[in-house]
Amino acid sequence: MDIATLVGFILAIGSVVYSIALGGSFIIFYDLPSLVLIGGGVAATVFLKWPLDIVKAAITVYLKSLFTTPVDLKAMIDEIQRLAETARRESVFALEKIPVEDKFLKKAVTLAADNRPPEVISSILGLEISAMEDRHSKGADVFDQMGADGPAMGMIGTLMGLVQMLQNMSDPSSIGPAMAVALLTTFYGALIANVFCLPIAAKLKVRSKEESAKMNIIIAGVLGIVAGENPRTVREKLESFLPPSQRTVAEEKKD
Amino acid sequence: MDIATLVGFILAIGSVVYSIALGGSFIIFYDLPSLVLIGGGVAATVFLKWPLDIVKAAITVYLKSLFTTPVDLKAMIDEIQRLAETARRESVFALEKIPVEDKFLKKAVTLAADNRPPEVISSILGLEISAMEDRHSKGADVFDQMGADGPAMGMIGTLMGLVQMLQNMSDPSSIGPAMAVALLTTFYGALIANVFCLPIAAKLKVRSKEESAKMNIIIAGVLGIVAGENPRTVREKLESFLPPSQRTVAEEKKD
Amino acid sequence: MDIATLVGFILAIGSVVYSIALGGSFIIFYDLPSLVLIGGGVAATVFLKWPLDIVKAAITVYLKSLFTTPVDLKAMIDEIQRLAETARRESVFALEKIPVEDKFLKKAVTLAADNRPPEVISSILGLEISAMEDRHSKGADVFDQMGADGPAMGMIGTLMGLVQMLQNMSDPSSIGPAMAVALLTTFYGALIANVFCLPIAAKLKVRSKEESAKMNIIIAGVLGIVAGENPRTVREKLESFLPPSQRTVAEEKKD
Amino acid sequence: MDIATLVGFILAIGSVVYSIALGGSFIIFYDLPSLVLIGGGVAATVFLKWPLDIVKAAITVYLKSLFTTPVDLKAMIDEIQRLAETARRESVFALEKIPVEDKFLKKAVTLAADNRPPEVISSILGLEISAMEDRHSKGADVFDQMGADGPAMGMIGTLMGLVQMLQNMSDPSSIGPAMAVALLTTFYGALIANVFCLPIAAKLKVRSKEESAKMNIIIAGVLGIVAGENPRTVREKLESFLPPSQRTVAEEKKD
Amino acid sequence: MDIATLVGFILAIGSVVYSIALGGSFIIFYDLPSLVLIGGGVAATVFLKWPLDIVKAAITVYLKSLFTTPVDLKAMIDEIQRLAETARRESVFALEKIPVEDKFLKKAVTLAADNRPPEVISSILGLEISAMEDRHSKGADVFDQMGADGPAMGMIGTLMGLVQMLQNMSDPSSIGPAMAVALLTTFYGALIANVFCLPIAAKLKVRSKEESAKMNIIIAGVLGIVAGENPRTVREKLESFLPPSQRTVAEEKKD
Repeated sequence: MDIATLVGFILAIGSVVYSIALGGSFIIFYDLPSLVLIGGGVAATVFLKWPLDIVKAAITVYLKSLFTTPVDLKAMIDEIQRLAETARRESVFALEKIPVEDKFLKKAVTLAADNRPPEVISSILGLEISAMEDRHSKGADVFDQMGADGPAMGMIGTLMGLVQMLQNMSDPSSIGPAMAVALLTTFYGALIANVFCLPIAAKLKVRSKEESAKMNIIIAGVLGIVAGENPRTVREKLESFLPPSQRTVAEEKKD
Repeated sequence: MDIATLVGFILAIGSVVYSIALGGSFIIFYDLPSLVLIGGGVAATVFLKWPLDIVKAAITVYLKSLFTTPVDLKAMIDEIQRLAETARRESVFALEKIPVEDKFLKKAVTLAADNRPPEVISSILGLEISAMEDRHSKGADVFDQMGADGPAMGMIGTLMGLVQMLQNMSDPSSIGPAMAVALLTTFYGALIANVFCLPIAAKLKVRSKEESAKMNIIIAGVLGIVAGENPRTVREKLESFLPPSQRTVAEEKKD
Repeated sequence: MDIATLVGFILAIGSVVYSIALGGSFIIFYDLPSLVLIGGGVAATVFLKWPLDIVKAAITVYLKSLFTTPVDLKAMIDEIQRLAETARRESVFALEKIPVEDKFLKKAVTLAADNRPPEVISSILGLEISAMEDRHSKGADVFDQMGADGPAMGMIGTLMGLVQMLQNMSDPSSIGPAMAVALLTTFYGALIANVFCLPIAAKLKVRSKEESAKMNIIIAGVLGIVAGENPRTVREKLESFLPPSQRTVAEEKKD
Repeated sequence: MDIATLVGFILAIGSVVYSIALGGSFIIFYDLPSLVLIGGGVAATVFLKWPLDIVKAAITVYLKSLFTTPVDLKAMIDEIQRLAETARRESVFALEKIPVEDKFLKKAVTLAADNRPPEVISSILGLEISAMEDRHSKGADVFDQMGADGPAMGMIGTLMGLVQMLQNMSDPSSIGPAMAVALLTTFYGALIANVFCLPIAAKLKVRSKEESAKMNIIIAGVLGIVAGENPRTVREKLESFLPPSQRTVAEEKKD
Repeated sequence: MDIATLVGFILAIGSVVYSIALGGSFIIFYDLPSLVLIGGGVAATVFLKWPLDIVKAAITVYLKSLFTTPVDLKAMIDEIQRLAETARRESVFALEKIPVEDKFLKKAVTLAADNRPPEVISSILGLEISAMEDRHSKGADVFDQMGADGPAMGMIGTLMGLVQMLQNMSDPSSIGPAMAVALLTTFYGALIANVFCLPIAAKLKVRSKEESAKMNIIIAGVLGIVAGENPRTVREKLESFLPPSQRTVAEEKKD
């Protein structure tokens, strides 16, 4: 589970609830027709904008990214170094017998053990990366667009509420509450957009970059192994992908 | 017919109608001069911005994208594999006799059966893809711009209504309804933009990407056939365009 | 004359006039200081942002694009095919004697008849295209920026009107009309931006693309002629620039 | 002095002053705390966003661009043609003795007279162009950002004024003037952004493009001279950088 | 310490404090629930959008950029020239013994002294630059997004305050203060965004460019040394990265 997301949701809900509680009753922030309008409206734009399979994929991609542990690039480099040492000591073919947990690394190692030429390895794995990035960026798109449609639907709802209120001003005491209700759709829309959709899209993009950084390290590492490079050289090359503070080579940190 | 679009329209109209019905009469959301202003204004910007043939093409492109069945990439790969097997068993020239439904695949197969060199095949078909993408992106542009012009025209209409109301405040009881009417153009503009134009533009872009993904698979497949590659190798290469979960090769899913 | 633009202006002015006429007097939409502020302010930003020659060029480019007939790519391809046939039958040098109306085609044909090498032809004509695109995009920029400055100046005017109104509220009956007048600059600014400037910029960009598509067809055609290609092959290549529905080769339409 | 800028400032100030004068007293548009807030706030963001040397450079770049005469590309081409003729008649080494006013042309000619190879000339001068563009784009950035910070600071000031007004509504007659004052920061911010900062940034970008167009002409010309090309060929090549209407070759104008 | 940032903060806080002080009491700008909502809300979006390590890295990157002295490119060029002279006089291997303060230059010199081939040096150091740029751009992203989330959270808070106020209008004298409080979240959000987050992001981007300019100079210099170029030629090449006014070669300034 992604702890930052958990903390974020608790903080977001906590500060909204605290702020409402101090100001009075919770019930004034509940209005069924407004909820139906926002919920239905945003769902409608999702269906209008995307084919069903992309919508499903977006949800899957998000849930998975939520429950995956962050990528540990350093452990990955350690593992690749161990593979490089095995390949040096025995042979590239010996790699196939070593158990490898990461799916992408497994695929890369299998290609290497099959003695495929470097260009083939790099092109097959490169296609895999761009397919993964494409899946992730479609998912991020769905949530980004919801982040724009939430406020837009909120504004439409508020306009509807204002029109109804303005056409019916005979009872002055009802004007305030009617306007309050009219503002609720904008409130709902802004909340959905800024607390759910846009942060989700942002996190998906970050995760996608992390994942593709990891994959690029794997490709660089396996190509080094296939080229018969010294395990130490392989490590040195891969560590240039890391921030200086995480490198094993004794180097002073810089920003 | 694209089911998601249908569901989307029903949801959008349903939630607006439900929300209006709860709040009172439908008639207060109808104002002829406002409709004329928005309809005329948005149509005007379309004519001012685009030549007639692009407007017509945009409508055609949209209607077609609405009524085409989604692209089934897996079935396409199956078909290409069968073609590759035929080409292997008999010869590339035998491909011409095989019935092929997809127009673009037909064109690609014909070029292959004509024994055209790979660079020629790939350049002719590549031009076709970019022409298709250009057509689709012009269509998406038309609707995207309408999505910006709707709210702009709505704001112009609301400003006109406010000016008329403010110049004529002798009867206090008419102020509310006059302001309600003034807000209607903004409401119409927001509705047109967010429920029709912007979702249409978004779906067109998605469809265009799907279509060009399919075409790229076809090009890659036919080039593999022409190069005399093993049908199994051809399939393997084409499947890297698919999300892992749809591949036939036994692989565990990853996100 | 570009008919779509004419229709657009009539529609825009018609719907605004109709909407004003229904709502009362025209005079309430006229305020000289507001007009001076918007007119002077937008003109000022144009002079502040652009050198005089670009302003003049932008107007010229716009007027020309308004009064040119749309590019007929198919007729252009016919003409190039005829030239290719002449070059085949007689020789490339015979092209010089054939009358050619289009300036750019004339230049291309002259270069071909001068027996210039293909790289030279393509580089000279390519420079011409990018110079044309640069001229058009500067023109579009001028109008795009005016489309942003109109509403900005409108807002400045409205703020000035509001400040004057708020400082002078002793007579309640004058508040409404004063606020109406304050809103007029925003109205003028929005009208200028959305009905004149932004559509003009959009149409200029479309025209520029059409023009450069035509020029690219001419370059491809003349290079084919110089390479001594079969007129039929030349046509086939050029038609891939057209939407499928306009091609002569019997093909079913696709979107 | 750039005449367009002068005309623009006079127009902008003139129309604002005219519009204020018609509406009443000038004094109502003056509020010291608002001026301090806007002036201090915008200056603060400049210091927060940019190192001191970039701020200084931005001002220098702007002042210089204001007082330089526009680039006359045609005169520059004439001069290069004369140089080409000298180089032809005598030799490339003779170029050094010819007086050349433009610094960049001088540098290019010196490199040519030093008999440096074409790649070296083109790489040294290319670096010079990108350094100039970088300097100009940093300057434009500073003013563009001020154009965004002006309205932002204006909104902050207006919010502060509104909060103060709303907390202090015991005297109804003071509400109007207090709100007027609250609006002044937004007015100041919009004026600074739209009349000063954004136009300055736009003009800097235009000037930068003109300058780099001139420099590219010089590079192309000097490379032609070094390659020993015919002066007439050199001119012909350079003129393709000009709009057709300015070319000496008898050609009909096209847009 | 970056003096411009210090001056900026003092200016920003000073002008806000001055403006509040003139307008009355400071206490009216303090509201705990609003502060909790903005603080909690913006922190929530940060956690929702970014993994913890990027948040930590962003803070580190910012603090470091605040307390580093600006890069002195000219001193760096002097140092590289001295290294080039040593390498000329003695040999490339002698470089290792020369003390070098800058970490990146040290690494470059070590690679040169190790007699690594130029492509290797340039690829290893290039990776280092892009890793540094990536770190900095992630940091800038975090603050840029906070600059968007501040006002969004402010608007959500203001909507909540307005809804509470509108539902509770029985006491007219409380309406003003309630609305004032509702506006405070928007005020806080705008202040956080425009005075802290966006300027920080802007300065990070500038610092990152400066840093990468310095690194590119180092790479170019060390490659020149490795190629055995004349120290004077090395300097001349490196100075083309500087603005003309800072070059040692006697040249008149140009803008």
